[in-house]
Amino acid sequence: MVILRDGHARHAIDVLKVVPGKTVRVGVLNGPFGVGTVTAVHSDAVSMHCVFEAKAPEKPRLDLLLALPRPKVLRRLWAQLAALGVGRIAVTNAERVERNYFDTHVLAEDFYRPLLIEGLQQARDTHLPTISVHKQFKILIEDELSTRFPEGRRIVAHPGSGSVQAALAGVRSNDRVLLAVGPEGGWNPFELKLLAAHGFQAFDMGGRILRTDTACVALIALVHHALAELP
Amino acid sequence: MVILRDGHARHAIDVLKVVPGKTVRVGVLNGPFGVGTVTAVHSDAVSMHCVFEAKAPEKPRLDLLLALPRPKVLRRLWAQLAALGVGRIAVTNAERVERNYFDTHVLAEDFYRPLLIEGLQQARDTHLPTISVHKQFKILIEDELSTRFPEGRRIVAHPGSGSVQAALAGVRSNDRVLLAVGPEGGWNPFELKLLAAHGFQAFDMGGRILRTDTACVALIALVHHALAELP
Repeated sequence: MVILRDGHARHAIDVLKVVPGKTVRVGVLNGPFGVGTVTAVHSDAVSMHCVFEAKAPEKPRLDLLLALPRPKVLRRLWAQLAALGVGRIAVTNAERVERNYFDTHVLAEDFYRPLLIEGLQQARDTHLPTISVHKQFKILIEDELSTRFPEGRRIVAHPGSGSVQAALAGVRSNDRVLLAVGPEGGWNPFELKLLAAHGFQAFDMGGRILRTDTACVALIALVHHALAELP
Repeated sequence: MVILRDGHARHAIDVLKVVPGKTVRVGVLNGPFGVGTVTAVHSDAVSMHCVFEAKAPEKPRLDLLLALPRPKVLRRLWAQLAALGVGRIAVTNAERVERNYFDTHVLAEDFYRPLLIEGLQQARDTHLPTISVHKQFKILIEDELSTRFPEGRRIVAHPGSGSVQAALAGVRSNDRVLLAVGPEGGWNPFELKLLAAHGFQAFDMGGRILRTDTACVALIALVHHALAELP
């Protein structure tokens, strides 16, 4: 038995117009999907009997190392990132990131969590991306990456490199992939060198320079597609 | 000799801080790129001597048939579409498009043209997408498509179909591709049947349902990538 209250109850009553006996699709965050059968509707609560699938959907194989974009851009990105399917997101500083971007409320969990959940609902996934924020790029790459992203292939989008297929060559069907997406203006030479020294293979998605939000969506779609095609 | 006035002159003076002798990257809409050497700076005008490349960049091979999204979403899409590279965009009605969306100022050329140009500048392209608006889906597909998009492969994104590679099989390096992207709730069965009867091959980009703007960016990136890989 599950009891919905507050916003969830309001949505069920006002939008889904539930009545006893009606079924709705339900999902447990980071767990399985299921079907809820409404047993009672009160003015501020809905009770349901839920039956869940045996298994949660597969966790997205892709993680993201993202140079902090402008707050306005990041605000638009949260739901899209969750909808596209990303396991972890490490938001990092870089030379071409303005320091004051780190003060934004867009980086507060209270702000981004509902947006991530909105993206999951859109895409029908339950895996909430794990977010971490790193103000020191060098420390993240040199000291923390090996514990935060211990396994899998590391790739970085950078104009003038090889194809995504080449960067993913040899990745097996269970391997995770960590994709680094730089700031508007790109990583600087020091940052690129540090990434390369820590195993990031550069790839290129064509000659066009895209805004961070466009680039993020395009790159994640390409990498997911390339991963789905691996033998 | 080219003379910049108004917004272009202000941008050159205030942002680029041009002085006589300084060179700036220039481009002719639908024409070649070049280099402009500033010859004089006045309070409201800048004169330049421009040398252009012999050839314009290649026109994007991809055209878009787009079910009209919510105005808020379309507003965000214009610059992204131009940046990703699209030759023509036919905006169309569909059952799941709300009729009043067609009244939006976001569909007015005065509104979208500067956004398209912003996208071109970002991506370093000069080909301004050609926009047409169609309130009657059936008439567009049955009567107008053969003159507006006479050549090339037609594909439609629809969950549960084959891969984009399969949909593009046999496309040659000069062929154009027309990509149909449906409304938020998808094409209805009649629309899908009409598209199929007019040569649109369905393909799928994976199980996740994406918002129109996310889907558009992801799909265009995937198709461009698949086209670049064709033999």
